[in-house]
Amino acid sequence: MSAPTASPEVAQLLQDPVFAAHDRGKMETTLKAPIRDRDDLSRVYTPGVARVCVDIAENPDHVRDFTLKANTIAVVSDGSAVLGLGNLGAAGALPVMEGKAALFKQFGGIDAVPLCLDTQDTEEIIRTVQLIAPVFAGINLEDISSPRCFEVERRLRELLDIPVFHDDQHGTAIVTHAALLNALTVVGKRIEDVRIVIAGAGAAGSAILNLLQAQGASDVVVCTSKGALVQGRTDVPPHYQEIAARTNPRRISGTLRDAVRGADVFIGVSGPNLLEGSDIATMNADAIVFAMANPTPEVDPAAAAPHAAVIATGRSDYPNQINNVLAFPGVFRGLLDARSTTINNEVILRAAVALSQVIPQQELRADYIIPSVFDPRVCPAVAGAVQAAVAGQ
Amino acid sequence: MSAPTASPEVAQLLQDPVFAAHDRGKMETTLKAPIRDRDDLSRVYTPGVARVCVDIAENPDHVRDFTLKANTIAVVSDGSAVLGLGNLGAAGALPVMEGKAALFKQFGGIDAVPLCLDTQDTEEIIRTVQLIAPVFAGINLEDISSPRCFEVERRLRELLDIPVFHDDQHGTAIVTHAALLNALTVVGKRIEDVRIVIAGAGAAGSAILNLLQAQGASDVVVCTSKGALVQGRTDVPPHYQEIAARTNPRRISGTLRDAVRGADVFIGVSGPNLLEGSDIATMNADAIVFAMANPTPEVDPAAAAPHAAVIATGRSDYPNQINNVLAFPGVFRGLLDARSTTINNEVILRAAVALSQVIPQQELRADYIIPSVFDPRVCPAVAGAVQAAVAGQ
Repeated sequence: MSAPTASPEVAQLLQDPVFAAHDRGKMETTLKAPIRDRDDLSRVYTPGVARVCVDIAENPDHVRDFTLKANTIAVVSDGSAVLGLGNLGAAGALPVMEGKAALFKQFGGIDAVPLCLDTQDTEEIIRTVQLIAPVFAGINLEDISSPRCFEVERRLRELLDIPVFHDDQHGTAIVTHAALLNALTVVGKRIEDVRIVIAGAGAAGSAILNLLQAQGASDVVVCTSKGALVQGRTDVPPHYQEIAARTNPRRISGTLRDAVRGADVFIGVSGPNLLEGSDIATMNADAIVFAMANPTPEVDPAAAAPHAAVIATGRSDYPNQINNVLAFPGVFRGLLDARSTTINNEVILRAAVALSQVIPQQELRADYIIPSVFDPRVCPAVAGAVQAAVAGQ
Repeated sequence: MSAPTASPEVAQLLQDPVFAAHDRGKMETTLKAPIRDRDDLSRVYTPGVARVCVDIAENPDHVRDFTLKANTIAVVSDGSAVLGLGNLGAAGALPVMEGKAALFKQFGGIDAVPLCLDTQDTEEIIRTVQLIAPVFAGINLEDISSPRCFEVERRLRELLDIPVFHDDQHGTAIVTHAALLNALTVVGKRIEDVRIVIAGAGAAGSAILNLLQAQGASDVVVCTSKGALVQGRTDVPPHYQEIAARTNPRRISGTLRDAVRGADVFIGVSGPNLLEGSDIATMNADAIVFAMANPTPEVDPAAAAPHAAVIATGRSDYPNQINNVLAFPGVFRGLLDARSTTINNEVILRAAVALSQVIPQQELRADYIIPSVFDPRVCPAVAGAVQAAVAGQ
């Protein structure tokens, strides 16, 4: 018994190893114990199950003891901002969300269900997630376009009694922050002192900014395709004006290229090929360059290398891969283990610090500021810090 | 890495084998292949997954080839009519829906996700199912109270391009009809000729009636707690009046007890202890009694036995257990294998006939009119008939 076989056109695509890895999906459901006979059946289904239902109706928190809610989250997207591909809709987003569910299981032991919604209306997204929430112990929002993603997350956090985490924001912020803490150690600078430029003011850029400021960064300039966000600009959307109001203390204007001149740190969560090696050469001594656009970084790492002390990207074929999979499995593992009903900035910060500390300080090097995604220490370290942070609140 | 351990109170409950079988849930998600290294990661997630997303965005039906949608359905409930327990709400319903998902996998090889909705508003249920539908190849509605369940199913069938099946209606109708076909063979009567009484006019009773009438039954009386439904009664809801208008040709009125007098077939999908053995004695010769209320049948099988030729119940501790698990795994297996976008009465009827034919005619006996739920012939037989019915349409 299995799903139907493929058409000739699909059979052709299945010759490709990437498509073959997606043949009728990457995830399945499994029984934790088989149903072999009538006794098994009477325990997991009628008549036995009735007693469990009644117990949960009388003791609502037992739903985390006697159902899959104990270890299950939803990966929710509206398909409006899929990877760097844009608005692919619900079906086009599903391979990513299913892949995310696979990563949750592989790296965090978490059962995740991909839910791609057939709407891009903010209110409908919020209401739908609210209505399906009883089955899940957490919600991972994914690939919802900015700025709608901020309202979806904020409102759901208010409405639900389970943690809601937008990975494009906070997952990216955690791994970036962890890498930056270690990069600063390598070059011997302090976060309070450095000049930082962020390219990108979407979900990732905004969350990175928030975490940096919470940790004491005081001189951050955020750039978009319209150049540096500076107080007083009225030609940008309200969300950008809000960022301008609390950043850029030296009132730098002009292009990204102008902004990086003299900066200590460049963090790119934007698009390909925004800077040249010669731009990196204008940065301060011991420059730190995180060029995380995928698949093509904001600056060619090879071109940046002569002018930077530390370089990181989102790619697996360079050292220092800054990848969200270093964060989200451990974050949710910790939240589930703590039976957390919320997540807040303190938890997110503790996760970042724990991730940075996976590499012992004496082992830090310019090309080893962040552990491998396959480092088995990562998830337990992040999960433990998150669980402790929740317990301490 | 695992979900948190139990409280002392929960630990106590876990001494009970039924609760132990529910410890942190019965189902989990599993990767079809592990992610062992960067090559695996680059195939199931970025960058490889991007090509699959683009392919699906360009060829929407490929979502059934390259994602879990190929073999995944949702088991959806609002918790308003859980087993015989009533309105337990979303969390209280989850053990049943998770158990149903377990049965789908065990008996049909189908990946099913339980979704318990935090609303009992008909419009919200419909809209929510519509919005989560992109991930699923079918919707199994479950334990939604009557008569709302009829509108939810009808509207979703109009809205969605995947089959929508309310198991309390059609699953029950299929197994009941299959059992009745074989019982009639055993006693040598024809469906066109027999007098049938159904106790219960909810989801199950209505669907059984529809299937019987589609198969030629002409003399059916439906009884509720208010007695026999007969044309002209205005003291019952519109749904009951609609049933009265197309049943009860001999205009029988009075109680269930009055209605069964002289009947050939009694079908109970109602509640416990509605009839005595002496009532069964008033039925026609070679009476057929299906007393399917769980856990306590409409009539005690032992009391009915001296007066009936064939007795069936919903219980596993008597012969002839009429259990929906004989139907729904095969129905959805067939629908998925056919990539069906709908389900209709013809498919449902073909499933019932196929189920009745699992037992070769020469093996039929009064205490063997329906196969065991563990009979490995059942799911393939039902699935094959459904797939053929869909292909022929």
